[in-house]
Amino acid sequence: MSIKVYGFWRSIASFRIRVALKLKALPFEEISIDILQGKQFEPGYDAVNPEHVVPTFIHDGHSLYQSLAIMEYLDDIKPTPRLLPDDVKERAYARSLALMTIADAHPLTVPRVRKHLAGSFGADAHAIEAWVTHWTVEGLAAYERFLERRKPAPFALGKEVGLADICIAGQVVGAQYVKVELDAYPLVKSISDRCFALPEFKSSRPFEQPDYKAAGGKH
Amino acid sequence: MSIKVYGFWRSIASFRIRVALKLKALPFEEISIDILQGKQFEPGYDAVNPEHVVPTFIHDGHSLYQSLAIMEYLDDIKPTPRLLPDDVKERAYARSLALMTIADAHPLTVPRVRKHLAGSFGADAHAIEAWVTHWTVEGLAAYERFLERRKPAPFALGKEVGLADICIAGQVVGAQYVKVELDAYPLVKSISDRCFALPEFKSSRPFEQPDYKAAGGKH
Repeated sequence: MSIKVYGFWRSIASFRIRVALKLKALPFEEISIDILQGKQFEPGYDAVNPEHVVPTFIHDGHSLYQSLAIMEYLDDIKPTPRLLPDDVKERAYARSLALMTIADAHPLTVPRVRKHLAGSFGADAHAIEAWVTHWTVEGLAAYERFLERRKPAPFALGKEVGLADICIAGQVVGAQYVKVELDAYPLVKSISDRCFALPEFKSSRPFEQPDYKAAGGKH
Repeated sequence: MSIKVYGFWRSIASFRIRVALKLKALPFEEISIDILQGKQFEPGYDAVNPEHVVPTFIHDGHSLYQSLAIMEYLDDIKPTPRLLPDDVKERAYARSLALMTIADAHPLTVPRVRKHLAGSFGADAHAIEAWVTHWTVEGLAAYERFLERRKPAPFALGKEVGLADICIAGQVVGAQYVKVELDAYPLVKSISDRCFALPEFKSSRPFEQPDYKAAGGKH
């Protein structure tokens, strides 16, 4: 089985895929597409992914797109350990939590949006950081409110780490980019701390990636 | 079985759920939460959905959130007709297409984002419409490029209408809000035309909803 991932060190969606693959113990090769430099819009990458985003996941020559679809696929092709619970209501809750960052908080903070803010509204670096911080905090706060109603035990769905935790950890990665502390979100923090104690999460962090290090650690 | 949906006529995520429920022939009650007036942030609705978004789906008292999670759940509790194909790679492709609007195009155009553009950058109505139009067109163009590589036959995944088509149709609903014509996106248009020829889609359109009509048809 050959797995290739077109990703980028700073991409939170790429982070999710890295963690999922490592939890599944599936070896993969990651090819770096510098989305800060706009490499995702070049013709070579258009052939790989016509949406011009990362990650793209290629399994034995078959391409898949979108981090949630890829994580679900991994659960389908290698069910153990499971990322989504078996129970139908629990699966739905895991997906609900996952989508709060995937469909609501994270899309507002990606490079093409930051760039368009600058182009459309003349937003400077400070204003763009304030924008990213706002939506990052909104996402953390929404998670905290959900976790208050159903406490981590110790992960979001219970004893096993899974899809929801990967997505919450990704939201925390985004918080670190804009230096948002987690003190106001203790339940998010408790999940994040448990996640990042695991080698699969730790080694998937942006600043641990070879393309970050190759770029001289600039971000 | 009792199904309640907290939604709103203008919400594209609510549109998706309406269509999915109708394709499954599941009766439901829709409760209107006026997200243009900020009703989703009121304490009463916080009790329903701590993320303060629509839709919220309640099945026999059990709450679920996020349109994709809800549509997957509907496939789990009532597998026929299927919204997602059985084949693992095909399921992944359906989810990939779904997430291009759910995770990329649509989140950039919702009321809380439009409002924050006004608050943060002093964006006026014209600038906000230009922003929404930009991301709407980006989403349509990405779909068109994918559909060029795998032609609709006649729906996105083949003979049966499903999850990907619902999401593509939702993107077209968004295009209608900002008066983007589909001439440049003929494959998107072919799927949309087939979808809106079906009564389940037709009756789910925003301007057909009772809360739109009750508001005197203003938008």
